[in-house]
Amino acid sequence: MIKMFLRVSLFSLLVTLVQAEGLRGTGDMGIVIERATGSVLIIEHSSNTQLARVEGLGDLSHASAVFSRDARYAYIFGRDGGLTKIDLLTAKIVKRVMQSGNSIGGAISQDGQIVAVSNYKPGGVKLFAASDLAQLADIPATYEQNKQSKVIGLVDAPGQQFVFSLFDAGEIWLLDAKQSLSKPHIQKFSNIGKQPYDGLITPDGRYYLAGLFGEDGLALLDLWQAEKGAQHILPNYGKGQQKLPVYKMPHLEGWAEAGNYLFVPAVGQHAVLVIDKSNWQLVKTIPAHGQPIFVMSQPDQRRVWVNFALPNNDSLQIIDTFTLETLKTFKSGKGTLHMEFTPRGENVWVSVRDEDKLNIYDTATFELRASLPAHKPSGIFFTSRAHWTGL
Amino acid sequence: MIKMFLRVSLFSLLVTLVQAEGLRGTGDMGIVIERATGSVLIIEHSSNTQLARVEGLGDLSHASAVFSRDARYAYIFGRDGGLTKIDLLTAKIVKRVMQSGNSIGGAISQDGQIVAVSNYKPGGVKLFAASDLAQLADIPATYEQNKQSKVIGLVDAPGQQFVFSLFDAGEIWLLDAKQSLSKPHIQKFSNIGKQPYDGLITPDGRYYLAGLFGEDGLALLDLWQAEKGAQHILPNYGKGQQKLPVYKMPHLEGWAEAGNYLFVPAVGQHAVLVIDKSNWQLVKTIPAHGQPIFVMSQPDQRRVWVNFALPNNDSLQIIDTFTLETLKTFKSGKGTLHMEFTPRGENVWVSVRDEDKLNIYDTATFELRASLPAHKPSGIFFTSRAHWTGL
Repeated sequence: MIKMFLRVSLFSLLVTLVQAEGLRGTGDMGIVIERATGSVLIIEHSSNTQLARVEGLGDLSHASAVFSRDARYAYIFGRDGGLTKIDLLTAKIVKRVMQSGNSIGGAISQDGQIVAVSNYKPGGVKLFAASDLAQLADIPATYEQNKQSKVIGLVDAPGQQFVFSLFDAGEIWLLDAKQSLSKPHIQKFSNIGKQPYDGLITPDGRYYLAGLFGEDGLALLDLWQAEKGAQHILPNYGKGQQKLPVYKMPHLEGWAEAGNYLFVPAVGQHAVLVIDKSNWQLVKTIPAHGQPIFVMSQPDQRRVWVNFALPNNDSLQIIDTFTLETLKTFKSGKGTLHMEFTPRGENVWVSVRDEDKLNIYDTATFELRASLPAHKPSGIFFTSRAHWTGL
Repeated sequence: MIKMFLRVSLFSLLVTLVQAEGLRGTGDMGIVIERATGSVLIIEHSSNTQLARVEGLGDLSHASAVFSRDARYAYIFGRDGGLTKIDLLTAKIVKRVMQSGNSIGGAISQDGQIVAVSNYKPGGVKLFAASDLAQLADIPATYEQNKQSKVIGLVDAPGQQFVFSLFDAGEIWLLDAKQSLSKPHIQKFSNIGKQPYDGLITPDGRYYLAGLFGEDGLALLDLWQAEKGAQHILPNYGKGQQKLPVYKMPHLEGWAEAGNYLFVPAVGQHAVLVIDKSNWQLVKTIPAHGQPIFVMSQPDQRRVWVNFALPNNDSLQIIDTFTLETLKTFKSGKGTLHMEFTPRGENVWVSVRDEDKLNIYDTATFELRASLPAHKPSGIFFTSRAHWTGL
């Protein structure tokens, strides 16, 4: 009897220990894509440590991620069309589906219930249940006489919507995922410009912008006045002015907002463009250290950080958003591919692919706070993205 | 041997089950203050359920809360000067200190390491370690010949700073918590106006505004140009114009931002003021259903929701931020005290004190999605606040 009691007590004690051990908040967690090995590092940014590595995610050479609304699960979009749901707390793959042959990115709906993926091949958009990745809808990007378009620039928007662009069709589509998913309501905007190659939505979810590869300028859709259709802005900006070969296309999702200004990487030019959102005019062209890739603002919008294409992909440039002048340029290491700010901006994590490390800088002093090993790191994504629109 | 093996396996299985059971993401959690019973409800907003109740928090008649950066712990500031740290995952009080005789609110530093509390009696600000609530600093709000001032409007600001106002001194102080905490560096701004009664900081952490009780207008400090000192804005707005007795002071932390506009509750008037942030001029005075208390914008900034003082505290008014017109006014129930939007804005939680319930509305359709019981609920706080400045 006593033995039994002891055994039960011991068991309860162990269970309590295990429980306490396993528990942790998920608000300070994140993942780092290890592009060469198809693996993902799980990290936490309160004390800057690695927690675990998850392997078996296929081709992550151009991968991105979104998070569940409870900040526990990451959905990772692989280049090979793989969609993988991983559990940050157990460091395990929960589910993995091959949803197409070639994919470039995805988004999660406002309510966190639907994961959307945009595809190159065979084109179109697929919707999946965030819970078990069951397919909910397959939306072909059909235009003209049964032609299929590549889909790019897919983002979530307020009102349980998704917005995306059709590269081959020159269209922007607005999908309402609040209604029937078997026959989703789609509003189509045609003649938005030639070959939209990427898109972004402003943090408030109001403006959708698509970069154009086939002509100068950008396409702009004001979702608060969608009935007015897409506008063509910055008609004098683009490939027409291009003075250098484009080593790498900039990522539009890296555009930065500060007050009323947008900071935009100029394609192929050594420049960051500053656009006034109130009239969509160019305010200034800031000289850049190289061809900019990501142009990202600190959460406090006080400074914008820029990284570059080859041969300048070893540096970071920091721009003051008040004076619109460059504050500092420094060498962060070869293959500086991506940056992610801690949610309230005191630190920035930088992936340095060719040196197999992650550098963590103090955003106020630019001091290197820590450096962690990682296998060819590229994208860095923190769980705080779960709470933001369009990321 | 087989028995032993079975026992070990059974144990492992149970541990795994317990572990899996206890684990959950914390990104969709929150707390509700139950003001009459000194208790706090722990809730989650993915499927709109109550998870637990924590009791023993003292006088919560005017309470607020902030969250740890991992979104696991809440720090609750009670009216009686009690500061309580609770664990949302175990639903237990981790630590509770009585830090003063009378308190009104607090904030958490950018890096999540320091909790600051502003006090009425004896006045001043105290800093505590977020980990164990050990006191780090006691900063008296001394002015003139050793007079002590009440401190109000305490917020966190980028660069590991805190900003607060001295009611009796008519000053704004900017505290740098990055340096020594035993002798913290404080920048003081005098003659900012008579009797600042509450303050707020814009979401980017740039502008600090203090409402004035002793004169018309508001005090504005641009933290990007703090060397210019505080300005006096809206000189024709305030008590001087007041047509009605003030039943309840509006909460400045409830001010709303949408694009370049701020939406402000007019003290004592049936009006919401719209201010243009680019020149700090009044754009419009929107007629309100009563004396506004909280004026809060949806995360997408498309609409602003307003609740009211007695005798209109049974209603909500929704304003369209694009047309600046009222879209809808409806009865939400007696004692409608507070609102909290889900992080990406699809729902809003409303505390209805006199009916002992929480109403959850769809922000797109205004449909009542769920109603949960709660004891005299007041403030509602979701863990996503961990990632935002000034909340």
